[in-house]
Amino acid sequence: MARIVIIGGVAAGAKAAMTARRRNPGLEIVVIQEDAELAYSACGIPYHLAQPETIPRARLIARTADELAREGIVVRARVRAEAIELGARAVFVRDLEHGRTGVEPFDRLLLATGAAPIAPPYWIDAAGPPVVTLRRLADIDRCRPPDTGSVVVVGGGPIGVEAAEAYRSLGCRVTLVERLPRLFASLPDSIGDAVQAELERHGIRIITDSSVARTVRTGVELESGETIPASLVLQAAGIRPRTELAEAAGIRIGTTGAIAVDRRQRTSAVGVYAAGDCAESRHRLTDRPVWLPLGDVANRQGRVAGENLAGGDAEFPGVLGTMIVSVFGLAMARTGLTAIEADRAGFEPIGVEVTAPSRARYMPGAEPIRLCLVADRPSRRVLGAAAVGRDGIGRTIDILATAIWAGLTVDDVAELDLAYAPPYSPVFAVPQVAAELLRPKPRLAPSGG
Amino acid sequence: MARIVIIGGVAAGAKAAMTARRRNPGLEIVVIQEDAELAYSACGIPYHLAQPETIPRARLIARTADELAREGIVVRARVRAEAIELGARAVFVRDLEHGRTGVEPFDRLLLATGAAPIAPPYWIDAAGPPVVTLRRLADIDRCRPPDTGSVVVVGGGPIGVEAAEAYRSLGCRVTLVERLPRLFASLPDSIGDAVQAELERHGIRIITDSSVARTVRTGVELESGETIPASLVLQAAGIRPRTELAEAAGIRIGTTGAIAVDRRQRTSAVGVYAAGDCAESRHRLTDRPVWLPLGDVANRQGRVAGENLAGGDAEFPGVLGTMIVSVFGLAMARTGLTAIEADRAGFEPIGVEVTAPSRARYMPGAEPIRLCLVADRPSRRVLGAAAVGRDGIGRTIDILATAIWAGLTVDDVAELDLAYAPPYSPVFAVPQVAAELLRPKPRLAPSGG
Repeated sequence: MARIVIIGGVAAGAKAAMTARRRNPGLEIVVIQEDAELAYSACGIPYHLAQPETIPRARLIARTADELAREGIVVRARVRAEAIELGARAVFVRDLEHGRTGVEPFDRLLLATGAAPIAPPYWIDAAGPPVVTLRRLADIDRCRPPDTGSVVVVGGGPIGVEAAEAYRSLGCRVTLVERLPRLFASLPDSIGDAVQAELERHGIRIITDSSVARTVRTGVELESGETIPASLVLQAAGIRPRTELAEAAGIRIGTTGAIAVDRRQRTSAVGVYAAGDCAESRHRLTDRPVWLPLGDVANRQGRVAGENLAGGDAEFPGVLGTMIVSVFGLAMARTGLTAIEADRAGFEPIGVEVTAPSRARYMPGAEPIRLCLVADRPSRRVLGAAAVGRDGIGRTIDILATAIWAGLTVDDVAELDLAYAPPYSPVFAVPQVAAELLRPKPRLAPSGG
Repeated sequence: MARIVIIGGVAAGAKAAMTARRRNPGLEIVVIQEDAELAYSACGIPYHLAQPETIPRARLIARTADELAREGIVVRARVRAEAIELGARAVFVRDLEHGRTGVEPFDRLLLATGAAPIAPPYWIDAAGPPVVTLRRLADIDRCRPPDTGSVVVVGGGPIGVEAAEAYRSLGCRVTLVERLPRLFASLPDSIGDAVQAELERHGIRIITDSSVARTVRTGVELESGETIPASLVLQAAGIRPRTELAEAAGIRIGTTGAIAVDRRQRTSAVGVYAAGDCAESRHRLTDRPVWLPLGDVANRQGRVAGENLAGGDAEFPGVLGTMIVSVFGLAMARTGLTAIEADRAGFEPIGVEVTAPSRARYMPGAEPIRLCLVADRPSRRVLGAAAVGRDGIGRTIDILATAIWAGLTVDDVAELDLAYAPPYSPVFAVPQVAAELLRPKPRLAPSGG
């Protein structure tokens, strides 16, 4: 009976274990997990932070260790994988409760070690506010809002803005410090500006173009010299793939810094797979490796890895970098390439920015959607989109993500047969309005001929 | 200077006029419209009926005759086209205010005559409740809720259920009479059942499998003999394309009963186009003509017709029959073919029905989506979908409408890179959950080999 060992059991690891179990009941499957909890939604943690009563911690857990055990998956919780011996086909482990070491032999191995926050690059005053990160469910208790209610969030990416909203909704004074001149700076200016305005409208102070110099007893000192009072500092400026185990075992690391995998999630070592935040993906438009540590990508990769661990032959067809972030009900989403990214990848990007209503303009609930659409001039293929608004953003981006996946042109998108009724959409959905503007219009003779 | 005459100015006609004007400023463009108002959203009328203060009548009008005139479009309002003389290139018209007749010569002609309600097939008692239809903006005053507050709606299609909701929300007692055994009977049972349950939950009585025998002084008598008190009867059981003008001119009518057009919206007569509810469409999956009198189809066809009237060479790429209907916040939507339609069209349909949450299951606002997905067994291409639920139905159907448009397979849909964040969607969107279930899963050896 083949023995499968999976290191990491949050998203990709848990999904792979479940998939392998369902696909092949004869396998022995062992999941090694550092924390007590596994199979949880890491993306849900900021929402639990904001609404611990409505969304209790236990709700984030899709399956407990006991439930996985009942499905015949052996869970080694509070156990750390310390080394992989490829020749011996074994993982050396340490029990974090008792310190005992042991060996987990494997026929096939999955690395689902995830990602870890980058250590703060500034000096931390031991007498100052705690500097915490919000990534694992085990982090949550350290991240609860302080009594004094002053929080500095360092980093304006998705986790940073979600956490800033959570603290603000709990009544804290919140300052968000972003190193770049703008939030979501890789997207068109109007997108980041809209997100920033929304955060500020809710009383969050945003300091862009700024870095933390050090923490001090009373808070955070910026490079500018300004001191911001804080009783808690949430460090949300960057994560890195956890590749130490793979590197030590001689498994190839890709150009992005994450573990290199082929379409079957196979690493450079025979019988060793990687999936989730520790692994690279292939971008469908550029055909280049990218590192996109996102929950849905982890789950899709985990499913492919699980299928293949079970003896199947599944392929992961790549990613478009689709994502969506919520700030106080304003949604910001993107898919595919920006114009700059498209240009770098060798396309000839053309773009348009439109603002159009999410529903028939006379209906209550209609909200403006701002959409930036990018296409390739010669082929007319849609390449990317970014959108911001209070209604219909997920739908807008999902239509375009599906269109880009399929290689549709602006002509196709302009003519798509989408679901229209006044309470749900305008006659021409926003992607169609934008696509129509990108269609070349040959000049017609004034005579009408 | 070429002279364009457009008969009908609601959706397709108004869109064509605006498109032709923008594309070719040198044209003379004349729109002939029976009613005083044009360029309005017919789909918005039930919402105006329900909320006349929030959505006043004027808000439904995208452009008034004056506004069109300022853009150089001549509007002949309250004028009826009575005959088309193809040889003479002229439309004979009658002014409905003064009875004067006239002639509108044309170089190119667009028929955008729309559709009309089918006359009630039952005896109407002149002393009984008024029997009205709700199709044109001019109908609205006759359709206002009666003081006594008892309305019978005949017909359980989109207009019927939207009107029933409107009357109910205005406090009327509402009975809906449907000839077939189920609402939306062409869709899977669970869809129509959910819509019916929602209407009933809001106090609307639904009588299926039943027809009106006649109206009587106090209301409506059914074939069963039951009399339902009513002071207003809304007849919403069927419409027909308005093809009389075309037929009389010898223009070809298609197998569906609507005006036959090619991809350029050209009729059988040289220089004569048709678009909107009076014209056929081509179904992209079956490549057969269908008649789909829907507002968004009318607008898309109108755009193509307008481009070609102006001397362009646009093609209408066809339809998928996508639609969405709202009943008290519950959405019902469909796209593509049902299993029965797919079978008739020569496909080998396989189907699945799933219920899965619209957002991460732990998030407030997550609602179940019931989705029926149909695919073709040999090619694995997605063929159709129907969905019902309170959240995310438009998004679900639009993802699938885009996928079907592009010819994607269940494998593609299962792996799409969509926008995931807990407040907006689950890790695997409902179309992906359903598509995954339709992927063939070859049996894996228990040994894992």
